[in-house]
Amino acid sequence: MADKQLKYIKIFATGGTFDKEFNEINGELYFKETNLFKLLELGRSQMDVKIETLMMIDSLKMTETERSYILGKCKKEKTNRIIITHGTDTMVETAKIVAQEIKNKVIIFTGAMIPIKFGSSDGLFNLGSALSFVQVLGPGVYITMNGQYFYWNNVQKNKKLGIFEKINK
Amino acid sequence: MADKQLKYIKIFATGGTFDKEFNEINGELYFKETNLFKLLELGRSQMDVKIETLMMIDSLKMTETERSYILGKCKKEKTNRIIITHGTDTMVETAKIVAQEIKNKVIIFTGAMIPIKFGSSDGLFNLGSALSFVQVLGPGVYITMNGQYFYWNNVQKNKKLGIFEKINK
Amino acid sequence: MADKQLKYIKIFATGGTFDKEFNEINGELYFKETNLFKLLELGRSQMDVKIETLMMIDSLKMTETERSYILGKCKKEKTNRIIITHGTDTMVETAKIVAQEIKNKVIIFTGAMIPIKFGSSDGLFNLGSALSFVQVLGPGVYITMNGQYFYWNNVQKNKKLGIFEKINK
Amino acid sequence: MADKQLKYIKIFATGGTFDKEFNEINGELYFKETNLFKLLELGRSQMDVKIETLMMIDSLKMTETERSYILGKCKKEKTNRIIITHGTDTMVETAKIVAQEIKNKVIIFTGAMIPIKFGSSDGLFNLGSALSFVQVLGPGVYITMNGQYFYWNNVQKNKKLGIFEKINK
Repeated sequence: MADKQLKYIKIFATGGTFDKEFNEINGELYFKETNLFKLLELGRSQMDVKIETLMMIDSLKMTETERSYILGKCKKEKTNRIIITHGTDTMVETAKIVAQEIKNKVIIFTGAMIPIKFGSSDGLFNLGSALSFVQVLGPGVYITMNGQYFYWNNVQKNKKLGIFEKINK
Repeated sequence: MADKQLKYIKIFATGGTFDKEFNEINGELYFKETNLFKLLELGRSQMDVKIETLMMIDSLKMTETERSYILGKCKKEKTNRIIITHGTDTMVETAKIVAQEIKNKVIIFTGAMIPIKFGSSDGLFNLGSALSFVQVLGPGVYITMNGQYFYWNNVQKNKKLGIFEKINK
Repeated sequence: MADKQLKYIKIFATGGTFDKEFNEINGELYFKETNLFKLLELGRSQMDVKIETLMMIDSLKMTETERSYILGKCKKEKTNRIIITHGTDTMVETAKIVAQEIKNKVIIFTGAMIPIKFGSSDGLFNLGSALSFVQVLGPGVYITMNGQYFYWNNVQKNKKLGIFEKINK
Repeated sequence: MADKQLKYIKIFATGGTFDKEFNEINGELYFKETNLFKLLELGRSQMDVKIETLMMIDSLKMTETERSYILGKCKKEKTNRIIITHGTDTMVETAKIVAQEIKNKVIIFTGAMIPIKFGSSDGLFNLGSALSFVQVLGPGVYITMNGQYFYWNNVQKNKKLGIFEKINK
């Protein structure tokens, strides 16, 4: 029984709560650089991963322009295993746009409910989770949050509880 | 395409660096209770998980008695998806013993190189990783560390580098 | 040479960045309870300290009502050693109001530039600092930030740099 | 009423639990470099501080050689405000040796019960505390731990409880 032959895994950073930081000068949350490099170090990951920041934006501010760009980068990407860190608020919208045009890659959207820079963030857990799902799931577009994986067309964010759940149970 | 019907996931805690704590009175590392409950909270896990502490021990101190006990608990366990947190030093030994007798369950061994109680631990990442692999891998016994998964019969700990790697590349 | 006879130290919590938390449901910063109890535990403080939450508010939102209340509580307080955790933006204003009416107590204002709940907060350092200054400084009203102490009438917040400095060097 | 004219504060690092780190390769605690630089950054200290590492050692392993060296460095030091980070086990012994020969400087010993590298360390609190006491106490040799200050000749470590306390109450 052979172990799968794997090209590198590509991670596209687009921002979201995952990468928000606290600006002590004006007391607001903002973006600097992605924390992905540090997180992979923290997790002592030995996987062959390439990270590329596409944008650092709150997903509530995403428009068709940003989502098209993400789609275009996924299409052009040589490896067929992709993770996208993304704000949770409109993660499902971007997943839809990508799923309608790409069928032959494993594309996983993940993020965090608490910024990495806060001590008690779910980001490191979600990254370990996404990195694992992307190695074993079949081609398709998924959202992985809360230790679970969802198909792009059967998931919604429960904004009241702050979790993701299936539409059809 | 159906989502898998999943019974609960069982996590057996056996100790290892994963759960070591610093005793400020005598300056040594020791065990209190498992950190698994807090970690699943931190990761905001929505999976149906049951945690049971079998022992809190450095895996260098494990003997045939401890490993038999772990094997027996895995046999008796009703769910077929099991994670075992374990010291990394003799994780492969215990995996061998379990693999020789259990063929029909997904059993994943994981741990940490740095105690959870240290700020920069890989434990939360490894837990997210194991919780994901256990949902999608087929029946078998695995070690998941460093974001990777290994079959029980093709893995060793590189004690010099502190990572896990395949025996046959 | 005698060690000073000390009644308890009173800490009044009024909010500010010191106690802000991240609300994962709406992505904003908000207040729950003060972190002071946990911080004193973390610092392993053996001092006799009593904590009272007066309000949990961003100091930019303070009006004469809040500052009068703080003044009133300081006047009524039995011990003559008081620390007030306060937002840094209008800490000097409240210090002025208190200093004009209370001459016989050691009253120290401190806070944090980064919320305690963020990993890299200055709050724990500032609390250790304030707790020490309050034991040795003479009666008066002070601001202690950045490891320094300032008299209430010779300090301003440098909003550009996010530090406190003397008005007259 | 003038603010005190202060030369820089000197911090000598000698090791102790304060600076211990976890070696993931062999599972033991060891020393790398001092964390003092990072801690002063974390505390956003604006004080003029110079840091010098004299040694990185568990204070149980200190002999007359190490203590004489610390004494010699304190004598030669130009500033009269000195902090020494030191293992808590034999902090009182070194304080005695220093106190017997130096009368005209403020010398403060501090340390930590939990390594800085652990999330829940008292080190940052103790550093803020020592940095404050050293600015306001009169010439003498002190131990500052648990938010308190003790004269060198009226303090002992309660090894059972892991705290410092006066000999004569």
